[in-house]
Amino acid sequence: MPPDALPPTHPLRSGVVADSPLLAAMRGTRPDTLPVWFMRQAGRSLPEYRELRVGHAMLDACLTPELAAEITLQPVRRHGVDAGIFFSDIVVPLKLAGLDVEIVAGRGPVFATPVTSREQIDALPDPESVDMAPIAAAVALTVAELGATPLIGFAGAPFTLAAYLVAGGPDRDQLQARRLMHAEPETWDALVDWLARLTGRFLQTQVQAGASALQLFDSWAGGLSLADYERFAAPASRRALDVVRPALGEGADRAPLVHFATGSFELLPAMRDAGVDVVGIDHRIPLDVAVSRLGAGVPVQGNVDPALLTAPWEVLEAHVRDVVRRGQAAPAHVVNLGHGVPADTDPTVLTRIVDLVHSL
Amino acid sequence: MPPDALPPTHPLRSGVVADSPLLAAMRGTRPDTLPVWFMRQAGRSLPEYRELRVGHAMLDACLTPELAAEITLQPVRRHGVDAGIFFSDIVVPLKLAGLDVEIVAGRGPVFATPVTSREQIDALPDPESVDMAPIAAAVALTVAELGATPLIGFAGAPFTLAAYLVAGGPDRDQLQARRLMHAEPETWDALVDWLARLTGRFLQTQVQAGASALQLFDSWAGGLSLADYERFAAPASRRALDVVRPALGEGADRAPLVHFATGSFELLPAMRDAGVDVVGIDHRIPLDVAVSRLGAGVPVQGNVDPALLTAPWEVLEAHVRDVVRRGQAAPAHVVNLGHGVPADTDPTVLTRIVDLVHSL
Repeated sequence: MPPDALPPTHPLRSGVVADSPLLAAMRGTRPDTLPVWFMRQAGRSLPEYRELRVGHAMLDACLTPELAAEITLQPVRRHGVDAGIFFSDIVVPLKLAGLDVEIVAGRGPVFATPVTSREQIDALPDPESVDMAPIAAAVALTVAELGATPLIGFAGAPFTLAAYLVAGGPDRDQLQARRLMHAEPETWDALVDWLARLTGRFLQTQVQAGASALQLFDSWAGGLSLADYERFAAPASRRALDVVRPALGEGADRAPLVHFATGSFELLPAMRDAGVDVVGIDHRIPLDVAVSRLGAGVPVQGNVDPALLTAPWEVLEAHVRDVVRRGQAAPAHVVNLGHGVPADTDPTVLTRIVDLVHSL
Repeated sequence: MPPDALPPTHPLRSGVVADSPLLAAMRGTRPDTLPVWFMRQAGRSLPEYRELRVGHAMLDACLTPELAAEITLQPVRRHGVDAGIFFSDIVVPLKLAGLDVEIVAGRGPVFATPVTSREQIDALPDPESVDMAPIAAAVALTVAELGATPLIGFAGAPFTLAAYLVAGGPDRDQLQARRLMHAEPETWDALVDWLARLTGRFLQTQVQAGASALQLFDSWAGGLSLADYERFAAPASRRALDVVRPALGEGADRAPLVHFATGSFELLPAMRDAGVDVVGIDHRIPLDVAVSRLGAGVPVQGNVDPALLTAPWEVLEAHVRDVVRRGQAAPAHVVNLGHGVPADTDPTVLTRIVDLVHSL
């Protein structure tokens, strides 16, 4: 049903989430209530999550619709945040595409076989043929419960996924990825092109099933020079977003796009130019400085330092107030952390931040 | 013997290293031969190192003068680089100060007890009383063998050392460090002040024993915002350098200082302002861009991408030539990697880079 492919029952089209502060801010206006959510709010910091996960491997939990939906809902119920963030992992679309990958505790995603050759890439399945049914089911269950609170869908960006794939696991210096992009640029391009199409479909599945906004996480983009980012990472991110763009809806009902990376000072204008509505900012860059890099027309998301979640409340409160004050340089601000919630966070502190932000 | 405390037999005063391309470049002039060395050139990439280390724990090797000297000399002999870099580890001064620390394979330095309280800090020994004799002995043995090739001494910067200490081990997101600096700034200041004095003495020991230049590594400074860096990290680095400054010698015989961090785009002017001669640049920032941040008067060191050491030679050669071309924006350039030599590097590639750089 182009040009607006969202089903009539979608929360954006049925008006359910129309007045949410989150969507207002993501569209660049200032709602009465300042919206706030937390990257990784769904997950390891919550006792109810740890209880629910007993006996379920991480990726199994992501692919069991009832579990993924419940885990997504837990922090919304507990903290009263302004959005749910779909509980998933950046490697879930790769698992759905049939790759042999597991999340190893204390290490991260580990692939049985690194993908580094053109032959391996050519043997990957057509992204169009990958069955995304568990994702659609989980999102549908989640939005049915969320009501007026919008759900943010999410995916890892092609560069970050490729960095895991070519190393066969976490490679925080991304040496294997940078080697491949420079040594065999055509192989690299083929890999991130496949990942872009898969990522696009993963996002499309989420928005069509009821997500009202989408966030592309490029966790490791900050390891690249601007030149490498523009040549080897940004085009695939743009392509992923272009795949999903026709499915975002139109006009007032359009689902906004958020783009986030850490260590991204040099990359911010290029990230904005991927055609997104909001740019997420990590803890390293004050929001007013980020706005001066991005231009004054771009709503921002972030950037409370996760390190201060364990500081005394007065210190954390002063920091949150400073973040909000600096965020006023942007047309709109979605309060968030500058990175994911650390596992050892006391969840009552997150609830207190939500109450503070809503009172400002 | 102030104001020039270098002993008369020091390589800088006896004229032994006077004409070295390294020192000429670090002083901001362009020698006939472009100087090159590699961070972590001494160590794990060399088979002769792996052989020598059998049966010796890392920190024991650092503290056994004959071993540390031999390991420092190995890459100079093999590659013909323009400098030796003293083989050590950033936690060596902490080990010498009596802290219970070990290098755990695959993990990094691990302390028996994290240091987080004022009581613990007050109980640390006076840096002046720490016996640095094994360092002085290793440096003396090394420079006696090095002849006309200068030795660069090195130390980790107080912020990076503190980040390990407060977490009790590697904490790549530095959450514990940022928590402490904001939650208990006086405790933080006391810790980095102690570390600054210890670091200053560690550097002083090296230069007095014969090192002809010194490099301060602040591996993790790129995790900080500029404001946090300026408030919580830079003053301690400056203090460490101020401790050693009177020992550097004077005029044409003065030992130059190098300052290096990764992910440091935002921090470069502040790093320069610590009162150093040369700023090291990681792989993320093209040297001409770095020079435009630093000002045209500052010699630079770097910034070959370590990821390309495993690329085909034509790719690596083109990259090295591009790095050298961009480095011409600075008054002088010491060619190096943008980070340490990866463990799986083929050492013959490093030798080939040295030959290429010397031919340019």
